[in-house]
Amino acid sequence: MAKDDLGKRKLRMAMIGGGPGAFIGEVHRKAARLDGQIELVAGAFSSDPAKSKQQGGELFLDPSRVYGSWKDMLAAEAARPENDRVDIVSIVTPNHVHYQPAKTALELGFNVVMDKPMTLTSAEARELCATVRKTGRIFALTHTYTGYPIVKLARDLVKSGKLGKIRKIVAEYIQGWLYRAFENDNNKQAEWRTDPARAGAGALGDIGTHAANLSETVTGLKIVEVAADVSTFVEGRRLDDDANILARWEGGAKGVINVSQVAVGEENEIAVYVYGDKASLEWQNRRCERLVVRYPDRPEEIWGRGWSYVAAESPAAAAGTRTPTNHPEGMIEAFANIYTNAAKAIRGLAAGVDPARADFDFPTVEDGLRGMLFIEAAKKSAAAGSAWTRIEG
Amino acid sequence: MAKDDLGKRKLRMAMIGGGPGAFIGEVHRKAARLDGQIELVAGAFSSDPAKSKQQGGELFLDPSRVYGSWKDMLAAEAARPENDRVDIVSIVTPNHVHYQPAKTALELGFNVVMDKPMTLTSAEARELCATVRKTGRIFALTHTYTGYPIVKLARDLVKSGKLGKIRKIVAEYIQGWLYRAFENDNNKQAEWRTDPARAGAGALGDIGTHAANLSETVTGLKIVEVAADVSTFVEGRRLDDDANILARWEGGAKGVINVSQVAVGEENEIAVYVYGDKASLEWQNRRCERLVVRYPDRPEEIWGRGWSYVAAESPAAAAGTRTPTNHPEGMIEAFANIYTNAAKAIRGLAAGVDPARADFDFPTVEDGLRGMLFIEAAKKSAAAGSAWTRIEG
Amino acid sequence: MAKDDLGKRKLRMAMIGGGPGAFIGEVHRKAARLDGQIELVAGAFSSDPAKSKQQGGELFLDPSRVYGSWKDMLAAEAARPENDRVDIVSIVTPNHVHYQPAKTALELGFNVVMDKPMTLTSAEARELCATVRKTGRIFALTHTYTGYPIVKLARDLVKSGKLGKIRKIVAEYIQGWLYRAFENDNNKQAEWRTDPARAGAGALGDIGTHAANLSETVTGLKIVEVAADVSTFVEGRRLDDDANILARWEGGAKGVINVSQVAVGEENEIAVYVYGDKASLEWQNRRCERLVVRYPDRPEEIWGRGWSYVAAESPAAAAGTRTPTNHPEGMIEAFANIYTNAAKAIRGLAAGVDPARADFDFPTVEDGLRGMLFIEAAKKSAAAGSAWTRIEG
Amino acid sequence: MAKDDLGKRKLRMAMIGGGPGAFIGEVHRKAARLDGQIELVAGAFSSDPAKSKQQGGELFLDPSRVYGSWKDMLAAEAARPENDRVDIVSIVTPNHVHYQPAKTALELGFNVVMDKPMTLTSAEARELCATVRKTGRIFALTHTYTGYPIVKLARDLVKSGKLGKIRKIVAEYIQGWLYRAFENDNNKQAEWRTDPARAGAGALGDIGTHAANLSETVTGLKIVEVAADVSTFVEGRRLDDDANILARWEGGAKGVINVSQVAVGEENEIAVYVYGDKASLEWQNRRCERLVVRYPDRPEEIWGRGWSYVAAESPAAAAGTRTPTNHPEGMIEAFANIYTNAAKAIRGLAAGVDPARADFDFPTVEDGLRGMLFIEAAKKSAAAGSAWTRIEG
Repeated sequence: MAKDDLGKRKLRMAMIGGGPGAFIGEVHRKAARLDGQIELVAGAFSSDPAKSKQQGGELFLDPSRVYGSWKDMLAAEAARPENDRVDIVSIVTPNHVHYQPAKTALELGFNVVMDKPMTLTSAEARELCATVRKTGRIFALTHTYTGYPIVKLARDLVKSGKLGKIRKIVAEYIQGWLYRAFENDNNKQAEWRTDPARAGAGALGDIGTHAANLSETVTGLKIVEVAADVSTFVEGRRLDDDANILARWEGGAKGVINVSQVAVGEENEIAVYVYGDKASLEWQNRRCERLVVRYPDRPEEIWGRGWSYVAAESPAAAAGTRTPTNHPEGMIEAFANIYTNAAKAIRGLAAGVDPARADFDFPTVEDGLRGMLFIEAAKKSAAAGSAWTRIEG
Repeated sequence: MAKDDLGKRKLRMAMIGGGPGAFIGEVHRKAARLDGQIELVAGAFSSDPAKSKQQGGELFLDPSRVYGSWKDMLAAEAARPENDRVDIVSIVTPNHVHYQPAKTALELGFNVVMDKPMTLTSAEARELCATVRKTGRIFALTHTYTGYPIVKLARDLVKSGKLGKIRKIVAEYIQGWLYRAFENDNNKQAEWRTDPARAGAGALGDIGTHAANLSETVTGLKIVEVAADVSTFVEGRRLDDDANILARWEGGAKGVINVSQVAVGEENEIAVYVYGDKASLEWQNRRCERLVVRYPDRPEEIWGRGWSYVAAESPAAAAGTRTPTNHPEGMIEAFANIYTNAAKAIRGLAAGVDPARADFDFPTVEDGLRGMLFIEAAKKSAAAGSAWTRIEG
Repeated sequence: MAKDDLGKRKLRMAMIGGGPGAFIGEVHRKAARLDGQIELVAGAFSSDPAKSKQQGGELFLDPSRVYGSWKDMLAAEAARPENDRVDIVSIVTPNHVHYQPAKTALELGFNVVMDKPMTLTSAEARELCATVRKTGRIFALTHTYTGYPIVKLARDLVKSGKLGKIRKIVAEYIQGWLYRAFENDNNKQAEWRTDPARAGAGALGDIGTHAANLSETVTGLKIVEVAADVSTFVEGRRLDDDANILARWEGGAKGVINVSQVAVGEENEIAVYVYGDKASLEWQNRRCERLVVRYPDRPEEIWGRGWSYVAAESPAAAAGTRTPTNHPEGMIEAFANIYTNAAKAIRGLAAGVDPARADFDFPTVEDGLRGMLFIEAAKKSAAAGSAWTRIEG
Repeated sequence: MAKDDLGKRKLRMAMIGGGPGAFIGEVHRKAARLDGQIELVAGAFSSDPAKSKQQGGELFLDPSRVYGSWKDMLAAEAARPENDRVDIVSIVTPNHVHYQPAKTALELGFNVVMDKPMTLTSAEARELCATVRKTGRIFALTHTYTGYPIVKLARDLVKSGKLGKIRKIVAEYIQGWLYRAFENDNNKQAEWRTDPARAGAGALGDIGTHAANLSETVTGLKIVEVAADVSTFVEGRRLDDDANILARWEGGAKGVINVSQVAVGEENEIAVYVYGDKASLEWQNRRCERLVVRYPDRPEEIWGRGWSYVAAESPAAAAGTRTPTNHPEGMIEAFANIYTNAAKAIRGLAAGVDPARADFDFPTVEDGLRGMLFIEAAKKSAAAGSAWTRIEG
């Protein structure tokens, strides 16, 4: 049988989760489709086989590759000939169905793209790190916001030393959609995201990990300790819905991580502000195509995605750009950058690229572990009256 | 042979144009892919067969459906069995290769999605209108900006009477990328867009038609006359690169259409401002997810895509929305709304929907004719010292 | 008697107009007070002596210097000893009471600060120019917006060549407060500003002259011709309330002047956009402390009032600055820059500065004439079906 | 001798501080002048008599009322006849020269307007509270930002219940001017503001008290405890230049106070964000004329100073408004609102208004005490490893 040449075909993807009523599953699918590098061919969209079939039908999939359980799917796909089985397993389930399918898929030789937070505990996360190392598969975690070209630019400007030594960092993720107890109103999203068993953590996990990851990605500095004031404002809610966190990063930077799901009227305001001893930068999701750079002695600059001067400073930003300046790109494109870069990495591995030397550009299993450590440290700090609590990476 | 059921499969698309070095072709492809409703299966990407093959290869197409000329492709696709031929022909060539392939495709029974401006002359445009009427095929023109959910909201708010009687309209499309003679620097985009033979018109056609269409779509009022000051600022350029236009719309509204390709440093600032006798609105591409509504006696409102209050006023805006508020969507998503709505219309026709009664939501061949009339009236006015010149719709 | 040393005391000011119910009079008074260089000591605040007295009382003036008519006041003040009479006459009346008092004041040897538009006709304006030349007095016209430090910066950046040759200019002044017939509701401001006898022109005079002056001041280029579409949208209104104007400036620049008093919901959005062949700039009243400068090949810059890099480019901007960056200054401060610079000029003349060589920085009687020529050309063009109409400076 | 009628004259003011090279002194003078209610007639501008004279000369003061020490001035002014002495003593010195002159002035019967932070210690602050109560004089502290009409509107909207129960508050004051050790460069402002003996506290005092006061003023809720991470980033600096603070307010609200003088490139970004269980608001100094109000189920609103709908919700905002919407007002006007409201209070007391029943609208000596308690609690918390520390009001 001819060797399967990944360079001559679309990568094949199976999805776990993303059935009727889900939200993020379809975002994953659009992101995977956008650049024409990946084709969805199989799915276990729901633990209810009928719903899984329904979803597969809406996606025009071959019914024989639509499964009623992820275990069945992984087993069946692994049993197909190499040149016909899926390359990627995309996992978009609630958090409690992350660890086991990811581990299984990796061990069966599949590459994995998975939603965050990565697991329910840091122990699971460490285990997943080990599995990735052991299997040599590609594992990408969809910390969407670092997929924005302008966030890549921010990261590359910090790395180049333009800001000098980093002193202060403010990261925030503020939203208002859980300002009241929608989990009691048959709102499926609200239900599982506020359920300890399925989500593990509330605001800390769902959005706090995004803010923490954004701060670490942009600055290249890890959070070393936190002092957290974690709250549940909505009566009867079983998980945290707000957190105000003092944080310290490697190298002496200090600052704040500010997270809320009850900031009524706010949309999804994830933002990061980084202050060095030479210059500072500001990135806000609401102006996701713009980076503000400020100096002590010259005009504020607004860097816009798509310009050649951005490409000069950040090839990664240019690589993640599809349209010219002010033909706005958004969150699906940022998401797609994770999929497309993961696809590139998968093709690269297949073509013999040394992963240790490859410049892969997407959040990894290590980022996922960082997220779990962040959640656990914040909870521990809060339980101890906001005492400073180390994150042992 | 079983009847082809369009409801059970992706629509099949062929593309004319969009070969190596093109810009808008890949945007069309991403837009067509995004929602998983359309699959690209064939293409005549270049009049150079080798380039067409190369492009087909990069798109992982079956080489047997990659053609060296659009005529060959249309003939070959038309010869395939009904349940295997393409449903849609997407035409993304320079303007001088719009009319003939569109007419041919329609007459062969294909549906067409095409880039703007629609043709080189209004005579061609009228002919195409007749062809669409005659063939009963779906024809969608990619006036991208009206694909934005927020522009649909704007249109629906005006239609509902919220602004009262419209008095003043300002539409603009300001960009700077042609601020010098890049057409002499082997810049393919600049070359054909400033070439009278291939583009027909310069700024007036490439972006002026967008601004004019935006004004007509949002207000529901047609431009009835213009007084245009049309310029070519860059020395040696063979087409217009700037136009300042006084305009009057149906119902007595007056205003300005402001168009430039030499507004150095500007990105693609298409915007529309509409003032009624009760309220006014503002939409700008740089904040494409927001509509500003202003009143004489209460706070300015910022309407944001994705909120339930938007859905209440504009089901069309809600239908064109993929992600929650402030998970930014952009231009590719707006573009995709044209493709996806055209696909829905094609499925509808196949399922027996009466097109006269269908609520199809995309720019039509009639919009394309309006654009050509606008270009011709503006040129005629300019030639007559900015004299008021009627647009005879 | 000792020679009056203007360097050792506040300048003394008399005001004509600004009685009870007036708006702009008190703005003039605050502007004159702000820097402690000018003291209001006399006034003919109303043609109704009782109202004038009332106003004088509220201002804690010596009742003997509060007059019932401007003629009486000018005569009485002229009769006082030189070291006791006023230095400045501030004229803040409706437009029809501009020319005569200004001419009289100048001829009696007073310096004049006056509101705009300067007169009712260009003939009066030319006469006033001659009077200023003849008397050698200081005459300042309160085109407020050019008093903003950031507008001075814009002017100086253009002058320095940073933008290259100017190609396109858009100036606008958009407000909505006259969106309905408030002149019938005992609204004193609406009454006189829509009265042909008292205002002369409507939107063209009240705000159009500001936009035109702003374009000429920032670019240093005079408007040479206009093609104007002038409207009265509110039924029964006796003056224009909206104008869309094509304009051409010296040196080949073209563009638009957009003026409205019926842009419902808009505040006072005066703005100017200037596009050269090297760079462009944007200034908007709503962000009056910021200048946007855009380039073809590097990040957009936001210049902020108060920074040292602004002072380096524009000493005039620095001179007009009172507080550090982002301790916002506003319209009263811009207004005060006109008064304070006029006061400096008056002291300069008294100290023997050669006015021909002085770097006086405020709008002059020549600006006032330009405004009248602009109004008349726009009206003439409108009457001739928007025909291009020369402004003969 | 006739009784002195404060209603018929400007109030007379003496100033302590504000000599050559000072910054805030001239801002106080402009603020006091702006509305024509207060006249500066005396001053001890510097402890160097020559400099004090020089400053008095530049202000055109009677040399006999320009003093070389504040003690001399207070004694001399107190010795003048009641109808000739000053009404107000304005204290604009560095912090270590606040307490004693204020106390002395009050005890001599003068009203006081003073800069913040109020004193060096909370003990002094409590003493000053007692002195104000005892003397019955008016005491206003220039927490500038609460003088903005839009901040008054924010306060009044919260008070009216529009936001519901307050859950989360973020207050920040971010500036970058001390990003390096300018105190070693003969920068007078940097010198005293980083000198423990003269300033008492660094960022916490100079700007942290503004942020804290803003949060308390807008929400009407007092801060009850803080957990502070206080830093000195610039090497060799003797006071704090940055602080990240977790805070809790009365009624269960939680949040962050974020303060920095080393946020390089930032101007003076004081802002407050308040989230209730019904709606939220945002105010930022950079858009000081706008209040953003957000809801769970309708468009975001932008409230603008000067509109009648603002007056309807906040008479105090309307009272502090001088010009129509988007004739921008700024920081000097906000400052002037404190002076003008203090002047109104002084006239009111003289006219027999019961201070206990008066609706005085300016920051008081009690606000000053709150500021000192905030500084001390933050320092104490920082010294205890960011432990939660009560503010005992």
